[in-house]
Amino acid sequence: MSDTSMVSMKRVQIIVKGEDLHLVEHLLVNAKVSGFTIVPNVSGRGHHGVHEGHLLFNDMHTLDILFTIVPEDRLDPILAGLGTLFERHSGVVFVSDVWVTRKHYFETYANSSR
Amino acid sequence: MSDTSMVSMKRVQIIVKGEDLHLVEHLLVNAKVSGFTIVPNVSGRGHHGVHEGHLLFNDMHTLDILFTIVPEDRLDPILAGLGTLFERHSGVVFVSDVWVTRKHYFETYANSSR
Amino acid sequence: MSDTSMVSMKRVQIIVKGEDLHLVEHLLVNAKVSGFTIVPNVSGRGHHGVHEGHLLFNDMHTLDILFTIVPEDRLDPILAGLGTLFERHSGVVFVSDVWVTRKHYFETYANSSR
Repeated sequence: MSDTSMVSMKRVQIIVKGEDLHLVEHLLVNAKVSGFTIVPNVSGRGHHGVHEGHLLFNDMHTLDILFTIVPEDRLDPILAGLGTLFERHSGVVFVSDVWVTRKHYFETYANSSR
Repeated sequence: MSDTSMVSMKRVQIIVKGEDLHLVEHLLVNAKVSGFTIVPNVSGRGHHGVHEGHLLFNDMHTLDILFTIVPEDRLDPILAGLGTLFERHSGVVFVSDVWVTRKHYFETYANSSR
Repeated sequence: MSDTSMVSMKRVQIIVKGEDLHLVEHLLVNAKVSGFTIVPNVSGRGHHGVHEGHLLFNDMHTLDILFTIVPEDRLDPILAGLGTLFERHSGVVFVSDVWVTRKHYFETYANSSR
């Protein structure tokens, strides 16, 4: 049963404009996440940096989704970095609980020689 | 630390046929969500309105995923609307817990003048 | 209100190389899930079978995401099957809690004549 025992982790999902994708990639690499996934060319309407208080039906942007899975103790630096980034670039981030079977795949490189 | 304090929200994820995408978009806009994201052209096999009780290996459809993040008190009207829609159109919806750092991005326009 | 009452389920999300997609599809069909969704052609960096301990900035792969929603009691056989598959093929899997309104859509075919 060791194959299916699960460990709690956090999933961080970020949605940004394509032109800002590289900024988030740099941030995640610098945060020493073990990896991330990009879902390119999604469409976003509203709540991606729209401040004007109306969701207009033709307010559609081409965006990218990035997500990464990290141990909970890595969450704060990532969110702090994104908070700074989102002061100048539109985007959203949300966090959810996930469980993984192979914990070592998702550990950060905090202790690596990199 | 105010950048990284998180607020609980609900993520609503909906999977529908491309031809029905506009119906869900209208429903979400009418529900005054603050925004949503569309992942276009995903492939679905089974459980998207298949009633016949068999998952056939060649039963593949081109679908779209929409998701939105809303305060919990906005969930019921959205699910009720989808329930009505899914009486005539195939699709699935599921809800999960997420946490966001910037609550105001996800608030609905219930109190706007729109 | 019966439309919006929700039942707890598990979402299993799997990320694999395109060449291994069919293996996961077979595994899920054999596990008698009621259906699954494929998000094709996502980009993955690191943590998809990378063992060398460094996340290189040009270490990018084209991958596919599959996800399925199953009752909790179907989780262990799926994770065990993936555990075996991931001994020879790179990939990641993570599990999260979701709630669905229409439980029958997500039930497995364990009792079907298939």
